[in-house]
Amino acid sequence: MRLTLALASAAAAVIALVAPASAEEGMWTFDAVPAEAIKAAYGWAPDQQWLDRTRAAAVRLTGGCSASFVSPDGLILTNHHCVVGCLQNLSSADSDLVAGGFNAADRAREMKCPGQQAEVVTAISDVTGDIGKAIGALTGAALVKARDARIAAIEAEGCTDRVKTRCQVVTLFGGGQYKLYQYRKYSDVRIAWAPEFQAAFFGGDPDNFNFPRYAMDAAFLRAYEDGKPAATPAHLAWNPRAPKDGEITFVVGNPGSTQRLLTETQRAFQRTERLPLTLLLLSEYRGRLIAKMEESPEKMREGGDDLFGYENSFKALSGQFSALNDPAFTAKMAADEADLRARTKGNAEIGDPWAEIDTAMAGRRDTYLDSVFLERGPASYSTLAGYAQTLVRAAAERGKPNGERLPGFTDSALPLTEKRLTDAVPTYGWLEELGVGFWASKAREYLGTDNADIAALLGKESPEALAERLVTGTKLADPAYRKQLWDGGAAAIAASDDPMIRFFAKLDPRARELKAAYDRDYDAPVTAAQARLAKARFAAYGDKLYPDATFTLRLSYGQVKGWTERGKAVPTTTVMGGTYDRATGQLPYKLADGFVTAKSRIDKKGVYDFVTTNDIIGGNSGSPVIARDGSVIGTAFDGNIHSLGGNFGYDGALNRTVAVSTAAIQQALDVIWPAPALSAELNGGKRRR
Amino acid sequence: MRLTLALASAAAAVIALVAPASAEEGMWTFDAVPAEAIKAAYGWAPDQQWLDRTRAAAVRLTGGCSASFVSPDGLILTNHHCVVGCLQNLSSADSDLVAGGFNAADRAREMKCPGQQAEVVTAISDVTGDIGKAIGALTGAALVKARDARIAAIEAEGCTDRVKTRCQVVTLFGGGQYKLYQYRKYSDVRIAWAPEFQAAFFGGDPDNFNFPRYAMDAAFLRAYEDGKPAATPAHLAWNPRAPKDGEITFVVGNPGSTQRLLTETQRAFQRTERLPLTLLLLSEYRGRLIAKMEESPEKMREGGDDLFGYENSFKALSGQFSALNDPAFTAKMAADEADLRARTKGNAEIGDPWAEIDTAMAGRRDTYLDSVFLERGPASYSTLAGYAQTLVRAAAERGKPNGERLPGFTDSALPLTEKRLTDAVPTYGWLEELGVGFWASKAREYLGTDNADIAALLGKESPEALAERLVTGTKLADPAYRKQLWDGGAAAIAASDDPMIRFFAKLDPRARELKAAYDRDYDAPVTAAQARLAKARFAAYGDKLYPDATFTLRLSYGQVKGWTERGKAVPTTTVMGGTYDRATGQLPYKLADGFVTAKSRIDKKGVYDFVTTNDIIGGNSGSPVIARDGSVIGTAFDGNIHSLGGNFGYDGALNRTVAVSTAAIQQALDVIWPAPALSAELNGGKRRR
Repeated sequence: MRLTLALASAAAAVIALVAPASAEEGMWTFDAVPAEAIKAAYGWAPDQQWLDRTRAAAVRLTGGCSASFVSPDGLILTNHHCVVGCLQNLSSADSDLVAGGFNAADRAREMKCPGQQAEVVTAISDVTGDIGKAIGALTGAALVKARDARIAAIEAEGCTDRVKTRCQVVTLFGGGQYKLYQYRKYSDVRIAWAPEFQAAFFGGDPDNFNFPRYAMDAAFLRAYEDGKPAATPAHLAWNPRAPKDGEITFVVGNPGSTQRLLTETQRAFQRTERLPLTLLLLSEYRGRLIAKMEESPEKMREGGDDLFGYENSFKALSGQFSALNDPAFTAKMAADEADLRARTKGNAEIGDPWAEIDTAMAGRRDTYLDSVFLERGPASYSTLAGYAQTLVRAAAERGKPNGERLPGFTDSALPLTEKRLTDAVPTYGWLEELGVGFWASKAREYLGTDNADIAALLGKESPEALAERLVTGTKLADPAYRKQLWDGGAAAIAASDDPMIRFFAKLDPRARELKAAYDRDYDAPVTAAQARLAKARFAAYGDKLYPDATFTLRLSYGQVKGWTERGKAVPTTTVMGGTYDRATGQLPYKLADGFVTAKSRIDKKGVYDFVTTNDIIGGNSGSPVIARDGSVIGTAFDGNIHSLGGNFGYDGALNRTVAVSTAAIQQALDVIWPAPALSAELNGGKRRR
Repeated sequence: MRLTLALASAAAAVIALVAPASAEEGMWTFDAVPAEAIKAAYGWAPDQQWLDRTRAAAVRLTGGCSASFVSPDGLILTNHHCVVGCLQNLSSADSDLVAGGFNAADRAREMKCPGQQAEVVTAISDVTGDIGKAIGALTGAALVKARDARIAAIEAEGCTDRVKTRCQVVTLFGGGQYKLYQYRKYSDVRIAWAPEFQAAFFGGDPDNFNFPRYAMDAAFLRAYEDGKPAATPAHLAWNPRAPKDGEITFVVGNPGSTQRLLTETQRAFQRTERLPLTLLLLSEYRGRLIAKMEESPEKMREGGDDLFGYENSFKALSGQFSALNDPAFTAKMAADEADLRARTKGNAEIGDPWAEIDTAMAGRRDTYLDSVFLERGPASYSTLAGYAQTLVRAAAERGKPNGERLPGFTDSALPLTEKRLTDAVPTYGWLEELGVGFWASKAREYLGTDNADIAALLGKESPEALAERLVTGTKLADPAYRKQLWDGGAAAIAASDDPMIRFFAKLDPRARELKAAYDRDYDAPVTAAQARLAKARFAAYGDKLYPDATFTLRLSYGQVKGWTERGKAVPTTTVMGGTYDRATGQLPYKLADGFVTAKSRIDKKGVYDFVTTNDIIGGNSGSPVIARDGSVIGTAFDGNIHSLGGNFGYDGALNRTVAVSTAAIQQALDVIWPAPALSAELNGGKRRR
């Protein structure tokens, strides 16, 4: 499972609060952990010290994953699929770190992951009053402008050290709360150890979001500072024991986005417009990519990470689509809405936020296709196009006062934007052309040949010809050229004859216009309506509520537990030896070399993967699974198929987290891809490489 | 627009009757043309003689199209896209009849289209009582068995001459009526003339289902008998004049399938299950095919017809999906159901057919995925696999009494089945492998790796390995081998070690089991319920009703008329010269060579394509557009984007038929791809080549 941030953002601004219906439901902020409920369910709950210690060890990876420190020397446990992009970026035709895995002989050989940054929350403070004052009685575009300006200022003031800290204001409860999160950041993150792809992703797409499962989806990174391993005294104790049925587990990480309190109208939009369109685009692009990859082993390697991402998104969104078409699943949500409507009827302070959202939604439907195809243009499918869009926008935005800039270009956001832009990563011409050509062909198909924007952008060029001209002509694959344009600012962009830059210079005014219309006509009224919905909900159901996920730190509690699938009990754990039974000799069920050569040394009865009832979602990938004593016993990497409806609601009977156990990772370090120094480090041994 | 018979059949057995809500709505059977309504709207209606003459000239093409005789020598007017498969089958790397078009220098050079058969209705008789007696009080599987046996017998008795005639019993009004259609058939059909693909399909997929339009989607076939052009004294007069705004037009052809009276539950199944799944599969396969075709010009040519078909189906079904997600469109259907429920409440004779359909539908949902992937298996995407399935089934079926055989293998159906199986057509290994591999990969994805059927069919093979083994190993590309297995019957099939045959021998029991379950648990109860719904509808709304489309001859009346799109009037016609304005020099807006070289000779103000209000659907492709005087003034080839909801309902304000005018075709024959002999033949001239 991977966080689909890009896709999730299309549904933006839908943040509301939820009253848990099931004992283990909830993605709780660290300043509002429901200790009483946990105690009621398990006879014990974590105290403040436990929470503080855990929070200090919890890591957010800016690529869209979660992780945790597991040694005093900056060692980070996460999922293999959270580092596979890094491995691919560091690979070449001669050295395939995805297929072969990575095992640094010593720390000096740990390799820097381009674009990667690790972040640890150091403080959370309430800035609701501050922002509320800035908004005052404003509405529409003025509301959004005032709010965003105040957020930019708070972030800038909160983190003056932009090398080691990062500030983010997070909107919770649909505008009911604003919190400033301060992070300690590590922008030098290196890969220390990763298994072979075929072990990490054994079973491939067919097994993804399924269980039983046999996947070593784990890897180790290390945070560096000033060229040395970072000192991380706050870390989780490594506990390579098997999980026990029924034991309490905590998953601590950064769930990306949930939409658990959409109104019926908003859910209908998801079901009838956004999800079908997104799925259809993903399907066709997946098909094109698969066929192109089959042209050569080199393309197979180069396209692998993208394919995984698209297939993962496809499956996740398919699950959402199915959930929203399941009458039993949606009936509860409809009943919840009806109940809240009944309770607030005639309450003048609340008014009719549903009707306001209906109005905004109707307008959104009219411009939705334009937004999908024109706000990001080919940047939705092409890395080089993404660079061009960032550069064109940065040139304009950096000249403005901090408070007036687009998100991503405020003072607090610029360092990461620049790092992502200028870090060297390989790009592949065929893949870039595939992406740009696909975008152009679908934009023309959906908006129509006679659409004014399409006519302006494509002229008499075919999608394929446009893609070839932009990709073969651009120099943006060169990080030095990107840095030069970044440093050169508006003048450099205006002077550039790079075709990709020129294309985005032409598209950008329209993209900005669409974003402005979205802010004004949808975001502003919906934010205002949702804030009142939040108020209504607090009044109706009390304050034991958690906000929708926002890719910020949350705690979920649950237990090690299987489930019943069509009358059949699904076991809680798998064992290492099961891999051999499932292997077919052909992809994606081909054994990793390590499993072949270490067969006699592997403890086949040792636990491999396991499931828990924790409530997680994309973005939680890599989260530590933590036992009562605060030690780490696994890393969450997936949900079962039922967890996909979790975007809209949690079903405790069926929704499960899938994790790889520390016991399995320990076996991997001991006998499959031996890493004695790493093992010693994890287990508190003194040995140093 | 093309008839998507294969896809439509997945929704099978949903045939009901409809009361027209809009003046021009309706696909009328020739024995129940609503003369009064036509007269009321247009002050004139066709008499019996007009209808008889027209019916005798109307042609059904078994590939899924409509057509008409337009000369006494068997000349047939249809669409280019109805013969593109034939052109592709007759092409080679050296001679691309799709790209270059076809223009027989004389009749001796007209070329036989493999698998093509032309049919003309000669008689329609009512056999409702006969079949009703056979069914008696039976239910479930027994009902289906008795009904099908009686149908097979009636067909066999009705057409003892299987060389020149064909009989089909058609179920109308959901079992409220059964009619025997007798056809004169022509199984030697040759291509006489076809324009260049780039003229026929100018604008390609982006312009498909759109208007204004600039497409020469017309072609001429000729029916032969005993090696000579068939004598067809009954034919339409060729009338190469421009259509006039507001003039009455008749479209006579074979609409394939409509579903205008599904219950709410059945529509929900379409909206939430069948359409999304079908669209997603089409999308990904389309993507794979596009990427593979780009590998070489040869593959571009070889895959062209398939791609067109998939893109066409995709667009058509997308339109259906959108229609079913349009609250305004569906509200009327919901209201109709509510009205009929209210009118029949407490009527013991009608009972509650809706509840019976609900029950059947719930069961159908449970087995739907199995049906999609296992009933036809890889035959859904591969010609060779289709041969294997036909051969395996024929071997078993032909040994049974006529009344017990599966559809397609009864005495009346066998000749066409054999012709389709044994006619020589080229197949392409890469395309076959693509199809089989795609089927296997999606079947595994949707049914799951651990599904018993998947385990049995794939074993330890990957989808790609299975596809390669079956396609490289099979000899079914050779028509002589197919004929040998057909003639050899069950013994030959049992003895064959052809891997594709063996694969289907393994799959067939499961496929039959699924079909039997469908017949018993869905078809039988739904047929019974729908017959009572039909009765209720007749009682409530009188007998001025037309049955859902069944790929049998229908008449639609309407007029030449544009429509208003978002406040803007869409004109009724386009002119030839518009092609040059729309051309970009790049596909799909590249001018055909003929348009380049004949530019100075083309009458640029001459009408090209036009729209009418006729109510048509896939299967009507190639239908003549007939003027009041019975002459042909165009051939229908498409509907506008609004016509796609026509599967479920007709909206007279927006739904339009798109046709190419005989005036444009005459220009093509005169100056673009000159065919003087053909022109003389059409225009009653005596000249012979």
